[in-house]
Amino acid sequence: MKNKQVIINSLPEGKLTESNYRLVESEIPEISSDQVLVKTISFAITAGTRAGLQGSASYAGAPTTGIVMNCTGIGEIVKSNSEEYPIGKNVLTQTGWQEYSAQNIQSLTLLRDTVAPSLYLGPLGINGLTAYFGLLEIGQPQEGETVMISAAAGSVGHMVGQIAKIKGCSVIGVCGSDDKCEKLINDLGFDAAINYKDANFRQNLKEATPNGVDVYFDNTGGMILGSALFRLNSGGRIACCGVVSQYDTSTPEPGPRGIPGLLVNKSIRMQGFLVFDFADKYEEATNDLIGWIDSGQLKVLTDELEGLEKAPQGFVDLLAGGNIGTRIVNI
Amino acid sequence: MKNKQVIINSLPEGKLTESNYRLVESEIPEISSDQVLVKTISFAITAGTRAGLQGSASYAGAPTTGIVMNCTGIGEIVKSNSEEYPIGKNVLTQTGWQEYSAQNIQSLTLLRDTVAPSLYLGPLGINGLTAYFGLLEIGQPQEGETVMISAAAGSVGHMVGQIAKIKGCSVIGVCGSDDKCEKLINDLGFDAAINYKDANFRQNLKEATPNGVDVYFDNTGGMILGSALFRLNSGGRIACCGVVSQYDTSTPEPGPRGIPGLLVNKSIRMQGFLVFDFADKYEEATNDLIGWIDSGQLKVLTDELEGLEKAPQGFVDLLAGGNIGTRIVNI
Repeated sequence: MKNKQVIINSLPEGKLTESNYRLVESEIPEISSDQVLVKTISFAITAGTRAGLQGSASYAGAPTTGIVMNCTGIGEIVKSNSEEYPIGKNVLTQTGWQEYSAQNIQSLTLLRDTVAPSLYLGPLGINGLTAYFGLLEIGQPQEGETVMISAAAGSVGHMVGQIAKIKGCSVIGVCGSDDKCEKLINDLGFDAAINYKDANFRQNLKEATPNGVDVYFDNTGGMILGSALFRLNSGGRIACCGVVSQYDTSTPEPGPRGIPGLLVNKSIRMQGFLVFDFADKYEEATNDLIGWIDSGQLKVLTDELEGLEKAPQGFVDLLAGGNIGTRIVNI
Repeated sequence: MKNKQVIINSLPEGKLTESNYRLVESEIPEISSDQVLVKTISFAITAGTRAGLQGSASYAGAPTTGIVMNCTGIGEIVKSNSEEYPIGKNVLTQTGWQEYSAQNIQSLTLLRDTVAPSLYLGPLGINGLTAYFGLLEIGQPQEGETVMISAAAGSVGHMVGQIAKIKGCSVIGVCGSDDKCEKLINDLGFDAAINYKDANFRQNLKEATPNGVDVYFDNTGGMILGSALFRLNSGGRIACCGVVSQYDTSTPEPGPRGIPGLLVNKSIRMQGFLVFDFADKYEEATNDLIGWIDSGQLKVLTDELEGLEKAPQGFVDLLAGGNIGTRIVNI
């Protein structure tokens, strides 16, 4: 038996392409005394990992080639030296784009048996927790306020909007196609959705936010952030979650004009965060999220691909805006 | 008897010049039943008022010509219809650049008789309160942390640094001349001071902040903000107070590269504020500031000009970095 892996073959210059990856066969790894062997079931592809392939400023460390592409996944323990993590249990961990991985037991989260495993790649995993803490702890929306979200049909964005609705806010999503706009309004209950590729985007945004914007959940940076700054009310908050407009390029744009001037004039708080900042509250958040899913208030959108070899093209396509909800690769 | 006033003659295109103002004589205004007549003693010239001469985004409203230039000043009540604000009392108010003004009693702050009036243009006025709240409420420095300040020899900056020292922080000032750097270190007790015009500025900043920066008090925006972002530690805070690097031009720069990317990667909070946001705490702040001045912990730097007609050139020079401490015009 062999392991299949997708390796970072080269770092992208300009946009990411499939050829930045290669599929290899390797030996199935041995495990040491505090490790288990995990057989990947599924993993999520998320835009944020693109940042790790470039520059030196990422929290993930400097980019390098010849290693397995990183990601969060779920898998089954198939070999174990730990009583706490026995064979047959499902876990959430950094599987990477590969079939088998040796994992330190400290890096494992046991899945609750009562919960569908795939939920841990969406609402109960990094994406859902990012949406939860970014909106509630950083954005701090109050009932009746207006919440605007960019990349609103993405893995994080589509949950932010629904949580904002649960909290009694008016919700405006920004995304990249009319098809996504329709889904946000009709399937997820957003109050409005706007296509940023429309030539009248700024005017449409203005009309969709007659009371201005109180909380802007920013997944993109760039032009949409610049436009949001002009719609934000005094005392507004920007939760800086990601910068997808600037990931897939070697020449990121300067920051929006009006920073920091508009922040001063309107007493705006703009705050970056990583989901790990809230690690001590994951349990509480997970309980809330499960409750909302059970009651039907939080709908989960996934977009599934079959087979490890689909991951590179699936990532390239995701960076071009091809997905709705969380993109999952099933092995 | 006539009133002397400095009127906004034209809005600046590019840099402000003296010819954007004109000196006029007018009638001394009549006062209505809820007004007093104030004879200006002194007023402060501050960089922030430059923003009111441009664009449409200022909290001060859209710029216009033919009106008296606005500013905070102190004056003596020389005519009154109010028992609460009798003739002979000194007040802080928006005098503008003029000798006499009719003021609504709601816009007056009575000066404490025990305090030197000029202190109300510096530490006990808008500048001091801005330094106090911006640092303590927005920056939230903890003992032992590193605080960096731009325009550190300016009316706000020189007080921010001293308050940070009082709170037990390590303090690095950035300013525009070696002479200012010396004053910050030798006279005000800053731990380090750096001239941003030095070709090695970024390297000098790195060496002066071996433990990184925890709080950056930003009076400038632009290149210095961009440099600070790279020195900020995870969990760092930026108090956005002003944008003096971008005021004196018709073509402001884009925001720094790395916004919002670096905010995300380092969980940085960047927060704009106006001093008026803290109006309910002025009394408490004023008591602290008086205490620090009395104990010698807070030194007040002023830079005084004599005569109303000196104001336009004094403002042009201030925008070019010509002042140390609060620039005051005595009438």
